[in-house]
Amino acid sequence: MRILAIDPGYERLGIAVLEKKLRGKEEVVFSSCLRTSKEEEHSKRLEAIGKGVADVIAKYKPEVLAIEKLFLVTNHKTAMAVAEARGVILHEAAKRNMPVREFTPLQVKIAVTGYGRSDKTQVTAMVERLIQLPAGKRLDDEYDAIAIGLTCFATLRVT
Amino acid sequence: MRILAIDPGYERLGIAVLEKKLRGKEEVVFSSCLRTSKEEEHSKRLEAIGKGVADVIAKYKPEVLAIEKLFLVTNHKTAMAVAEARGVILHEAAKRNMPVREFTPLQVKIAVTGYGRSDKTQVTAMVERLIQLPAGKRLDDEYDAIAIGLTCFATLRVT
Repeated sequence: MRILAIDPGYERLGIAVLEKKLRGKEEVVFSSCLRTSKEEEHSKRLEAIGKGVADVIAKYKPEVLAIEKLFLVTNHKTAMAVAEARGVILHEAAKRNMPVREFTPLQVKIAVTGYGRSDKTQVTAMVERLIQLPAGKRLDDEYDAIAIGLTCFATLRVT
Repeated sequence: MRILAIDPGYERLGIAVLEKKLRGKEEVVFSSCLRTSKEEEHSKRLEAIGKGVADVIAKYKPEVLAIEKLFLVTNHKTAMAVAEARGVILHEAAKRNMPVREFTPLQVKIAVTGYGRSDKTQVTAMVERLIQLPAGKRLDDEYDAIAIGLTCFATLRVT
């Protein structure tokens, strides 16, 4: 079972592919942070996100999309841009008939740390304990994407 | 010059193609209201919007996308869904290298009625005076899309 896990963003977007083999442990097959350039026009930045996601799907062939829901918005303009990016991502999944699982930040925190008010450091630390990661440094966005993928595995297990 | 004009929505989306020939008047080549079904999953509804827009682009070959910006949001959940739909639409335009012009509802009202606080009835009445429309009944969403297209022509004229 392969999951495409995405922490949606507009300037930076965390993306990961997680795999779980029968009776095996979860593994991170791929993780990265897509960035879009402020120099580009808005619609071209959305295109870059769509292309980045399409490339990862083509290369790693995940079966399910796990993505974070937008929640508790403080900056309206940012929220709109991230929602537009989410639309592009959901569309890429739907075109390929990939089922979509959406999770709130609260659900992700509880699934990964057992505690709904955990901070970024706690999420990162638990992700490193819970799953085998390729060597190398990772950005927060990547850890967030991996945490969303782990949440998806946890819910698939119980359903 | 052909414009694809869209009043973005999630359940209902107004879409129109407007044309202006050299020294000619503006004409509405096509207008419709795309609807998505509540029975469908969220990502499938976004896919339907993407497909609907792609079909109109393929058939009428517009050169520019004119689309309304989201503004003054009262319902957060609706705003997120509409922003996601906007993302899908902007992505369809960007993939085809179509330039995008965005307008606020205020800009559209001023361009069409000369008055920023005009209501739907006034916008509809002015659209009917300003542009040659195909026969038949139209929904508000279609009038809104046509008004956005007219606003785009007005700004292209002065720039």
